[in-house]
Amino acid sequence: MSKELISQENIVVGEIANGLPLTIPVYRLKGDGTGPNVYIQANMHGAEVQGNAVIYQLLEQLKSLKLRGDITLVPYANPIGCNQKSGEFTLGRFDPITGTNWNRMYRFNKALPSQVAEQHKDCDDATLKAAFKQALVADIDSQLTGPDYSLTTGKRIALNLQKLAHQADIVLDLHTGPISSQHLYCPEYAKDSASYFNIEHVLLIPSDFDGAMDEASFCPWWSLSEELAKQGREFAVQVEAFTVELGSQEKIDLSAAHEDANSILSYLNHKEVLVDAAYHPKAMTRYACMLEDYVAYYAPMGGMVEYLAPLGGHIKAGEPIAHILRMERYLSEQPLQTLSFDKDAIAILHFASASVNQGTELYKFFTNVFEL
Amino acid sequence: MSKELISQENIVVGEIANGLPLTIPVYRLKGDGTGPNVYIQANMHGAEVQGNAVIYQLLEQLKSLKLRGDITLVPYANPIGCNQKSGEFTLGRFDPITGTNWNRMYRFNKALPSQVAEQHKDCDDATLKAAFKQALVADIDSQLTGPDYSLTTGKRIALNLQKLAHQADIVLDLHTGPISSQHLYCPEYAKDSASYFNIEHVLLIPSDFDGAMDEASFCPWWSLSEELAKQGREFAVQVEAFTVELGSQEKIDLSAAHEDANSILSYLNHKEVLVDAAYHPKAMTRYACMLEDYVAYYAPMGGMVEYLAPLGGHIKAGEPIAHILRMERYLSEQPLQTLSFDKDAIAILHFASASVNQGTELYKFFTNVFEL
Amino acid sequence: MSKELISQENIVVGEIANGLPLTIPVYRLKGDGTGPNVYIQANMHGAEVQGNAVIYQLLEQLKSLKLRGDITLVPYANPIGCNQKSGEFTLGRFDPITGTNWNRMYRFNKALPSQVAEQHKDCDDATLKAAFKQALVADIDSQLTGPDYSLTTGKRIALNLQKLAHQADIVLDLHTGPISSQHLYCPEYAKDSASYFNIEHVLLIPSDFDGAMDEASFCPWWSLSEELAKQGREFAVQVEAFTVELGSQEKIDLSAAHEDANSILSYLNHKEVLVDAAYHPKAMTRYACMLEDYVAYYAPMGGMVEYLAPLGGHIKAGEPIAHILRMERYLSEQPLQTLSFDKDAIAILHFASASVNQGTELYKFFTNVFEL
Amino acid sequence: MSKELISQENIVVGEIANGLPLTIPVYRLKGDGTGPNVYIQANMHGAEVQGNAVIYQLLEQLKSLKLRGDITLVPYANPIGCNQKSGEFTLGRFDPITGTNWNRMYRFNKALPSQVAEQHKDCDDATLKAAFKQALVADIDSQLTGPDYSLTTGKRIALNLQKLAHQADIVLDLHTGPISSQHLYCPEYAKDSASYFNIEHVLLIPSDFDGAMDEASFCPWWSLSEELAKQGREFAVQVEAFTVELGSQEKIDLSAAHEDANSILSYLNHKEVLVDAAYHPKAMTRYACMLEDYVAYYAPMGGMVEYLAPLGGHIKAGEPIAHILRMERYLSEQPLQTLSFDKDAIAILHFASASVNQGTELYKFFTNVFEL
Repeated sequence: MSKELISQENIVVGEIANGLPLTIPVYRLKGDGTGPNVYIQANMHGAEVQGNAVIYQLLEQLKSLKLRGDITLVPYANPIGCNQKSGEFTLGRFDPITGTNWNRMYRFNKALPSQVAEQHKDCDDATLKAAFKQALVADIDSQLTGPDYSLTTGKRIALNLQKLAHQADIVLDLHTGPISSQHLYCPEYAKDSASYFNIEHVLLIPSDFDGAMDEASFCPWWSLSEELAKQGREFAVQVEAFTVELGSQEKIDLSAAHEDANSILSYLNHKEVLVDAAYHPKAMTRYACMLEDYVAYYAPMGGMVEYLAPLGGHIKAGEPIAHILRMERYLSEQPLQTLSFDKDAIAILHFASASVNQGTELYKFFTNVFEL
Repeated sequence: MSKELISQENIVVGEIANGLPLTIPVYRLKGDGTGPNVYIQANMHGAEVQGNAVIYQLLEQLKSLKLRGDITLVPYANPIGCNQKSGEFTLGRFDPITGTNWNRMYRFNKALPSQVAEQHKDCDDATLKAAFKQALVADIDSQLTGPDYSLTTGKRIALNLQKLAHQADIVLDLHTGPISSQHLYCPEYAKDSASYFNIEHVLLIPSDFDGAMDEASFCPWWSLSEELAKQGREFAVQVEAFTVELGSQEKIDLSAAHEDANSILSYLNHKEVLVDAAYHPKAMTRYACMLEDYVAYYAPMGGMVEYLAPLGGHIKAGEPIAHILRMERYLSEQPLQTLSFDKDAIAILHFASASVNQGTELYKFFTNVFEL
Repeated sequence: MSKELISQENIVVGEIANGLPLTIPVYRLKGDGTGPNVYIQANMHGAEVQGNAVIYQLLEQLKSLKLRGDITLVPYANPIGCNQKSGEFTLGRFDPITGTNWNRMYRFNKALPSQVAEQHKDCDDATLKAAFKQALVADIDSQLTGPDYSLTTGKRIALNLQKLAHQADIVLDLHTGPISSQHLYCPEYAKDSASYFNIEHVLLIPSDFDGAMDEASFCPWWSLSEELAKQGREFAVQVEAFTVELGSQEKIDLSAAHEDANSILSYLNHKEVLVDAAYHPKAMTRYACMLEDYVAYYAPMGGMVEYLAPLGGHIKAGEPIAHILRMERYLSEQPLQTLSFDKDAIAILHFASASVNQGTELYKFFTNVFEL
Repeated sequence: MSKELISQENIVVGEIANGLPLTIPVYRLKGDGTGPNVYIQANMHGAEVQGNAVIYQLLEQLKSLKLRGDITLVPYANPIGCNQKSGEFTLGRFDPITGTNWNRMYRFNKALPSQVAEQHKDCDDATLKAAFKQALVADIDSQLTGPDYSLTTGKRIALNLQKLAHQADIVLDLHTGPISSQHLYCPEYAKDSASYFNIEHVLLIPSDFDGAMDEASFCPWWSLSEELAKQGREFAVQVEAFTVELGSQEKIDLSAAHEDANSILSYLNHKEVLVDAAYHPKAMTRYACMLEDYVAYYAPMGGMVEYLAPLGGHIKAGEPIAHILRMERYLSEQPLQTLSFDKDAIAILHFASASVNQGTELYKFFTNVFEL
């Protein structure tokens, strides 16, 4: 395949105050129809730009590969967040008007799995899958075509993206942490697939829906599978969806993006999206933790933080993880406090600034870690 | 009672980056112990300042009244939100770091009602009430004294306030809308009390908990009542809690605050908090709507809005509610669009700015209105 | 003239992070060449939207008028500021990255007047005028076509607008205050023209250049006039430029906009831009003050403000202009402070929010007022 | 000297909306009166926190040193900027209400040098110096004690700090760039002193006053020197003031702070502030450039930037300094653009985020570099 075989469409997902349209570029590559379809988006949170570079590196390689499945790639998924500056940094994690996290506005109609399970209980698996996929897309469409006053700005963006995602069998949402090591949000049932990414740290998440793209993509299918199990029918979850956390925000690194593209291609190759491709996972120890064991560590006091825990590194309970400097107390107290955590853990990410209030999220830790 | 009988305490609810404490002033007036205790707070959302003026006007009157119950008054409930400027306006509706709405961080331990209902099933009502109140406060304390890294900035503020609120029988959280008429959030079971406020519009809310102060105050008691009903025991909900929406944000109006104080004193008088006081509700038609019928109207297009619907006024389906000016389309389209709503309604509030994106919340409407 | 005779062009003034162009709509009406050319822009500051409605009302009337001069109308002059939200309000007074006021980035090459005065000292007035106009436009072009790394975001927007403005003989920049009465910034030499607007309050400004559009438009011509005076040649200032302050920000009012359009048409009619038109100024007392007598009143303490001075109204020295409520001092101090100003004055505008720090600009006052 | 000999005072520099005071901690160490007095402040810009750590490391060493001159140390110099969050980052470069850069609000009364030069023309140098110092402090006091409505929030903070600074002979204002190498702003006349700091890059600045602390400290003395030169009297500039740019913002690094403290102590030792101390500058090549040769490089297009130029490193004209990724143009253009600069230069700092608009300041470069 060469660059000419990639097509581009710019979808309109809203309108801003001066009337100009909000558009998102969508790139599509056609497969031969024998493999699963793939949807990959990046930059839903404004500061998390590295995924755009990964999509660039994916396109650079995909244009010379043969595909079994279709691949849809969406950089700049959030045209508001991407362009929302406040000082030098990008304030694009939440709608600046409402505070709502842009990645908590996707939809899951919880009535749908049981409806479809009931309506199509006599169908074979392939028909059932096609029917459910169609129902999911129709459900999104019914929202997009409801009364024109019924959708928030963020919901309209989310639904437009979700409509694309529901047409795929594999969904990857590319994010980053603030200052962060690489990690993968993986639904528990897809644990085996996690080993095909070159990502050392894996969070296993349950089937609860909290509004994120990965959940919005796999929860309906997981739920369908559970509905059918009640009928006594075994039906594998048909869709895999991951949030891939690429590293730190506010950064573009084309060489790291090339590595990340290879990691994703390794997974896609495993899923038989590619024809005769030579992408394979790296040998590495992969560490996992359950979402309930992913612990946020909030600043126990206000101050200026020197972060000490190596990201991706294993720390022992009681080891120093940070200094907090409190210069207004130089004479009255110990002005340099040392913090530690009371559990063995892997430090996955830390806050992006040294200045913290009491209660600011300083770190997130994997605890009760096990090898995958 | 004179001003000398009011006591003040400044509680510390956090620490900011330069190490200075975040404090909140708490004013207390003692009753003779024969009436219910009252907790009133204001300004949890930074721009919603009018409640501070209402507390001022309450204090000015309370200092010459005799009280049966204790009254605790907390202005400036959120020392971060109150001081968070972005341009001329106050950006204090959500934590500027995380986007979390400051009024969605209160706690409700859902296990508590059934535990207490079980443990104290042989107690009389008064003992049961005292035990549950104690359990609620202890539950908050257990959070405040947990590991020092376990609380977010907003949670620590919320828990400190909630600890005060749980000691009362009546809780009022003073808010405002953006540009808004007065309205009252009232739990369904306390509907009769709504008529003692001089507020024309009443939203009746169910027992669902979504993190707000009013819900955090009444949901546990509602839930306890339901648990005891399962035991076959009738136990009235012991606490009333309301969110009082005073009008528009970013404004202080001392004369309106005096009216609002009278409205609150009328309700407190009805609840027998005051001794021999002459506060009574005004005669007015009060309109109510169920929370599920409280409809948000989002801008169907981006543009510059002239708001036409009178706040607090009854509008008919299809009547103009706004013009949207779209000057970039002066030649290509009708540049002045007229919007309407498809239901009869009361317009309760509208957005604070003329500039809107497609999907910005333009109005909120009461629909399926009935007289209280 | 009918709507068909209006032409539209969208000029590109920049590019945002996701690569999309920043465009500004430009509307043009052709005159018969016998009158002065006019440039009118609106909404350079994001929250100051009412000027767009005035341009709408101007277009609605101009399309049925005959024109002597060309008229260029630019709504939405700042595609970044217009769309910069922070909470419900529009944070568009300054570049969110740098803090630079969008209306302080225009250019005035101070060397140009003396250069042109020297080079064309033997020309007649009309030739000199044409040469200077050409030199001003060429100077802007030289900036726009300099090294591609040499312009800030705001400068590029400003220069593109200024290039249009320099082609006109009359320049109106439509602004609003925060909460404000109407007033006009008028260069001292054009004082007589101020009486043709229906604006009660006029600020007379000197020839100093501080980066604003009005100054950038008239300072070069004022300076040229002074250079020629040194040669002993009398040469009237050829361009008039005004900043028209329409009232309060964040509001669209189509009926007020119609009045404002009439006010501008009255001035344009006086300047012989229109053919046989019936627009004349209203009879009213117009009050003026020199820029040096335009006094900012900063909050002498932090607190919550009730604004008392009527905007546009005459206040006496010592009269109450505001209450400041300080609820954290209810017991320790007088919690309600009354502010006054020590001079007789006209209150022109006040701050947009009740919450103020010590030192926030509360009011701006005309002092040493005289009738125009 | 031990820690007991350090004194602390918290000065009140303002009040916020909920009435709480804005305070700044001031640490003082007494010398024996035989050396120059020193003033060092940090963190005037909210995100530039590393200076606080340098003050910590200075105090840790100064407490065991003997001093000739007094030393005043002010961390957290800006209690508003320091605590102004917008998302994870600190938005403290400018007043969030007005956009004014916090480091452009200091005062220089340009009439003062000639007045004092005239009044004290018969005094000896020491008397003249004392008189001018006194006049500078009195001038600040006259501002601080003017009408209580006459000062902006930022001006009140600046004047309070400046009053402390004017009492010193040496003034250091500790800043950082966004992502930056170390560099020093040094007035041209104090060039020789620059070699006593361990800082490789030195910007030589002229005597123009633009509102910054360093300028506000040395410009009056430079100007006095020039006034006296007109009288034919040679009078060395009596005060040295520097802005020390420590590296990148949003970071605390205690080990780098220790190095920076040593660098400052080396300079202070050279100026004979310390008794028998062993701090000496490191041997290194120091590169200088004139302020007029310090070139900002603005993004020639919008996009996502990979920064390539090594900070502090020498780059050649035409070498790649950045990639700009423009993923919306993957098919229509070269999506990965390479940028270069047209001069040999040293890259001193770059923007803090990968996301840039056309016209965002990407880099600042030393050009026409020479060895000091």
